[in-house]
Amino acid sequence: MSTTPRSVGWLGTGRMGAVMAARLIDAGEDVTVWNRTASKTGPLVAKGARAVERISDLGGCHVVFVMVATPADLEEVICGEHGLLSADQAGAGLTGAGRRPGVIVDCSTVSEETSARVRAAADAAGVGFLAAPVSGNPHMVAEGACCIVASGPAEVFEQARPYLEEIAKLAVHAGEGEQARLVKLCLNLYLGIMVQALVEVTSLAEKGGTDRATFLEFLGGTVLASDWVRRRSGDLVSRDWTPTFTTELLRKDFDLGLGAARSLEVPMPAGALVYQLIQSAIGTGLRHEDFLSLYELQAAAAALPGDQTVPANETLPANQRRPANQTLPEE
Amino acid sequence: MSTTPRSVGWLGTGRMGAVMAARLIDAGEDVTVWNRTASKTGPLVAKGARAVERISDLGGCHVVFVMVATPADLEEVICGEHGLLSADQAGAGLTGAGRRPGVIVDCSTVSEETSARVRAAADAAGVGFLAAPVSGNPHMVAEGACCIVASGPAEVFEQARPYLEEIAKLAVHAGEGEQARLVKLCLNLYLGIMVQALVEVTSLAEKGGTDRATFLEFLGGTVLASDWVRRRSGDLVSRDWTPTFTTELLRKDFDLGLGAARSLEVPMPAGALVYQLIQSAIGTGLRHEDFLSLYELQAAAAALPGDQTVPANETLPANQRRPANQTLPEE
Amino acid sequence: MSTTPRSVGWLGTGRMGAVMAARLIDAGEDVTVWNRTASKTGPLVAKGARAVERISDLGGCHVVFVMVATPADLEEVICGEHGLLSADQAGAGLTGAGRRPGVIVDCSTVSEETSARVRAAADAAGVGFLAAPVSGNPHMVAEGACCIVASGPAEVFEQARPYLEEIAKLAVHAGEGEQARLVKLCLNLYLGIMVQALVEVTSLAEKGGTDRATFLEFLGGTVLASDWVRRRSGDLVSRDWTPTFTTELLRKDFDLGLGAARSLEVPMPAGALVYQLIQSAIGTGLRHEDFLSLYELQAAAAALPGDQTVPANETLPANQRRPANQTLPEE
Amino acid sequence: MSTTPRSVGWLGTGRMGAVMAARLIDAGEDVTVWNRTASKTGPLVAKGARAVERISDLGGCHVVFVMVATPADLEEVICGEHGLLSADQAGAGLTGAGRRPGVIVDCSTVSEETSARVRAAADAAGVGFLAAPVSGNPHMVAEGACCIVASGPAEVFEQARPYLEEIAKLAVHAGEGEQARLVKLCLNLYLGIMVQALVEVTSLAEKGGTDRATFLEFLGGTVLASDWVRRRSGDLVSRDWTPTFTTELLRKDFDLGLGAARSLEVPMPAGALVYQLIQSAIGTGLRHEDFLSLYELQAAAAALPGDQTVPANETLPANQRRPANQTLPEE
Repeated sequence: MSTTPRSVGWLGTGRMGAVMAARLIDAGEDVTVWNRTASKTGPLVAKGARAVERISDLGGCHVVFVMVATPADLEEVICGEHGLLSADQAGAGLTGAGRRPGVIVDCSTVSEETSARVRAAADAAGVGFLAAPVSGNPHMVAEGACCIVASGPAEVFEQARPYLEEIAKLAVHAGEGEQARLVKLCLNLYLGIMVQALVEVTSLAEKGGTDRATFLEFLGGTVLASDWVRRRSGDLVSRDWTPTFTTELLRKDFDLGLGAARSLEVPMPAGALVYQLIQSAIGTGLRHEDFLSLYELQAAAAALPGDQTVPANETLPANQRRPANQTLPEE
Repeated sequence: MSTTPRSVGWLGTGRMGAVMAARLIDAGEDVTVWNRTASKTGPLVAKGARAVERISDLGGCHVVFVMVATPADLEEVICGEHGLLSADQAGAGLTGAGRRPGVIVDCSTVSEETSARVRAAADAAGVGFLAAPVSGNPHMVAEGACCIVASGPAEVFEQARPYLEEIAKLAVHAGEGEQARLVKLCLNLYLGIMVQALVEVTSLAEKGGTDRATFLEFLGGTVLASDWVRRRSGDLVSRDWTPTFTTELLRKDFDLGLGAARSLEVPMPAGALVYQLIQSAIGTGLRHEDFLSLYELQAAAAALPGDQTVPANETLPANQRRPANQTLPEE
Repeated sequence: MSTTPRSVGWLGTGRMGAVMAARLIDAGEDVTVWNRTASKTGPLVAKGARAVERISDLGGCHVVFVMVATPADLEEVICGEHGLLSADQAGAGLTGAGRRPGVIVDCSTVSEETSARVRAAADAAGVGFLAAPVSGNPHMVAEGACCIVASGPAEVFEQARPYLEEIAKLAVHAGEGEQARLVKLCLNLYLGIMVQALVEVTSLAEKGGTDRATFLEFLGGTVLASDWVRRRSGDLVSRDWTPTFTTELLRKDFDLGLGAARSLEVPMPAGALVYQLIQSAIGTGLRHEDFLSLYELQAAAAALPGDQTVPANETLPANQRRPANQTLPEE
Repeated sequence: MSTTPRSVGWLGTGRMGAVMAARLIDAGEDVTVWNRTASKTGPLVAKGARAVERISDLGGCHVVFVMVATPADLEEVICGEHGLLSADQAGAGLTGAGRRPGVIVDCSTVSEETSARVRAAADAAGVGFLAAPVSGNPHMVAEGACCIVASGPAEVFEQARPYLEEIAKLAVHAGEGEQARLVKLCLNLYLGIMVQALVEVTSLAEKGGTDRATFLEFLGGTVLASDWVRRRSGDLVSRDWTPTFTTELLRKDFDLGLGAARSLEVPMPAGALVYQLIQSAIGTGLRHEDFLSLYELQAAAAALPGDQTVPANETLPANQRRPANQTLPEE
């Protein structure tokens, strides 16, 4: 088995990982893949990827991407007994399995703390580490419409940049440390405030006599609306709170984002207010609904009539609840 | 002088009015124009419009658009001694000057109260009235990218709709009364909240080590950013607060918007918070700066270093201050 | 009929007016009273006051106090055809009816605008005018526990001061103009914010396992609690929202107070937030309840169990609703 | 050495501990004291207390009070090698040293986590444990004006109650667990919101033309003011921010209080807003000032003139800064 410096490894071929790796293959890269459930690598192999059985077999690739589901998975596949760092030699520019890669690019969504721990382990092993969360869902990735924010040493970013730009329409370098995680949290704070802004003005227009569909059609036509707002307007019109991301998960992102703001001593007046409204929404039964259901809290406070009844996720037995993505909301 | 029912009148050929009327001419409409300063109609006449000397000469047009600068102008050109309603006969479908038009479409930005007064006068004169504010600046209008929200009787809207759709990419009917004014206020409330959201997360990313340009480039790439945010990111990066719309003008729109919310008994928690921050910005010297300067208030509270000094509009003598548009901020 | 300079007039002997006038009599003053419903002056006459039939009969008194129910009443009894200013001569130091008084002290609760209008009329007539709202209810007045804040020219205040100090335990001079009205609004804004603070911490302690009665007993023992909080704790414990002052009346005071803050360009972040919560409380059915019912909004958002059901004033037919004082809440 | 069941132990005779123990002696209790710096027990011995050399010598007392400065001290004197729990036998009702006490009452100010750890250790050793923080400063304790909130098993509270009521004017039982700590945090949240309410209305009155001293004199006379507000009005009038409790320490209490609210899922809209304002105050240089300096943030936002300059604690070299109490702010 022989690899070239441009050979790239891919660890984790779930829904997001698979479409990302596919873009590298489509761009002509020589891609080696590993997945816990080996059968999931089939479609990529069919496109031209090589599958390997052990994580350490990825060590021959100079750059290895990681896209796994949980922080625990991340620590295991990188720092675990058989993880990427377990080989006894750093593999930068070398050939063959049993080497450590030169650069690890983690695209998973994990906390700053986990990221920093993994980074420290990589540093100690002489391996470059890049935190590189993605903004976009699998559909957007497939269309080349996603964005990647990465942080880590500048020279490591430069080594990864060609691949990142094959995957995403935009790849930015946010700093030398864990900034990419913070930037991602900033996006989610921004989204939460946007949703509150949206439900306030929508309910105001509505109580003034303009129905939600008309108001949102107009807003959607203007330069003030984001594509995200346009995409979700239909759900807001029909009060369909089937979760894409629950109110409770948004609270978790606000916990992390406002926690970072506290550490950095940055006041977040609008963010803190929306956080309390999210908490109120949870307290009034919207915990397991989509976070767009902040509309319901607002509509009740504005004494808007409930124009239809959606079976509340909250009131269903736990095993019948509609599941939400655990991923970041703008995906 | 003979007109056809499809002949359309245009009253007020300032910057916005001129590009709007031009779109009707380009669409093949037979357009008759009037402007207080007659010379300003020249370019439209060169394109094929007919200019008239008296407002009452527009009465032969079934539909007359009005785009003037102030509420007082609006009342004068419609209800004044020589205004559109001054003729003694309604002109629907009739020929010749000295008639009232069948429909007046007001695209000016005025308060709900002024609008309602003018509407009542039109109603009394048997003339249909449509409040039809525009979202978009002259450049956007010229490119067919603006949006119009209109309110008034449905049948009046239907009569105006073909013209509205020639001017704008989107024309919606928001209700039978003054809803269009409220919808416009809703947009500006939304914009104000989004600016606060923007400056909070930007300052957070910045204090965490990601410079503004990088953060805004990333945000701009995602589906969360609106075109408005993308367009203004450069000013935020360079802290250029040359006003497009001052903090004080934004406060005025919030006065109107929150006043409407009060009348309708709609709580606006995020809107009310941002209003107080706007007030704080004014108190700390940002009155005459662009309202994006809410960033300065936030940056000071976050103890971010002032990375450059822009000569503050506030501190200039009144006669040297950079002027701001008086029009709505998203234009 | 002969009066001395120290003779004092009293116009309006309702619940508050009667106890205030009684304190002057008890202090040995020579008091002349007038009331629209003459029979209501009986108890004061029994204590030694002289009752007169016409308002103009009070003109012989150098200082005349006014305590009426509404702004319209105030304008009528002072500026009306037969009002205090209707006589053709200012009466300072003179004897007999048909004179204007030298000083009018208005203790009614009216808006700044009404107050300013009446003051201007008094000024034009050469009569000193003092706005002098009271903090305290009739019971407190009777015990000498109320406070008076007055504004108007300093020399006018000095002339009224001896009487004010006989009525109240504290009389302060807040300024030369309408400051007394503003100070009163400040008190009500403070009260509203404190009620929100109270319901937040009470619900937090409660959800943590300390019942309301215990928590409020402890708070009441500390130096942080005001007498007002101590007095109202029982109602909060029993969730008795029988109005002393309704949520809707509190909103009106916030309308006035935040309107004054807007005019003066003073941001009120906590005040504005509480205003929105008041609006939300109204929207969720607490309009006609005591404003302490802000607890219900908070308890619902905190998912606290409803431990008892009080028949909601809101849901009663209008003619069965418990009435609230229209006076200021701390009374 | 012989003790009776009513003999009470006192561990920690600093400023607060000494005045509290003195009240027990004055009430006729048989008090045994221990302090790290033994000489500090002198005044209590002079009043009739018995001093012991080792902590374990307090074991003969059924009830032992603890008042130490830090959480680490608390863990050491209770759980440490020579701490109260180090004896091999529980001492309830027994005679002689080397016994564990039956009940430990901790009056120190520590976090819920520390409290819970110490409580668990006591439970395991068969010793009753009461968390019993105090509201009041040494001066107030001496006058019998302080309040104690205690939590722990009801029967333990009953055993301690006679002593608590000799020390304080009020002793309440807030629950079986750590509720006393939460109640104390609730008080500090309440205080923080109160200060913000105070500075908002004071600045409003001030900008309207009523000076701070007059406004605060009036407020202080009404039933809305707490004794705390009355006591601190002078500092607010003179803008003397010499710390009694710094802005940064208040932020710490808000961190704890809002953290508890998050755990219990209680929204705190006013608390969260004030927290952000505290953060803004810190960001603008008020970190080491008294937390009443929230007034400065408000006054700047209201464009009130700075009427005097107090040398800012923040700008002094660290070793010249005025020290603040680390104790709870209402003391």
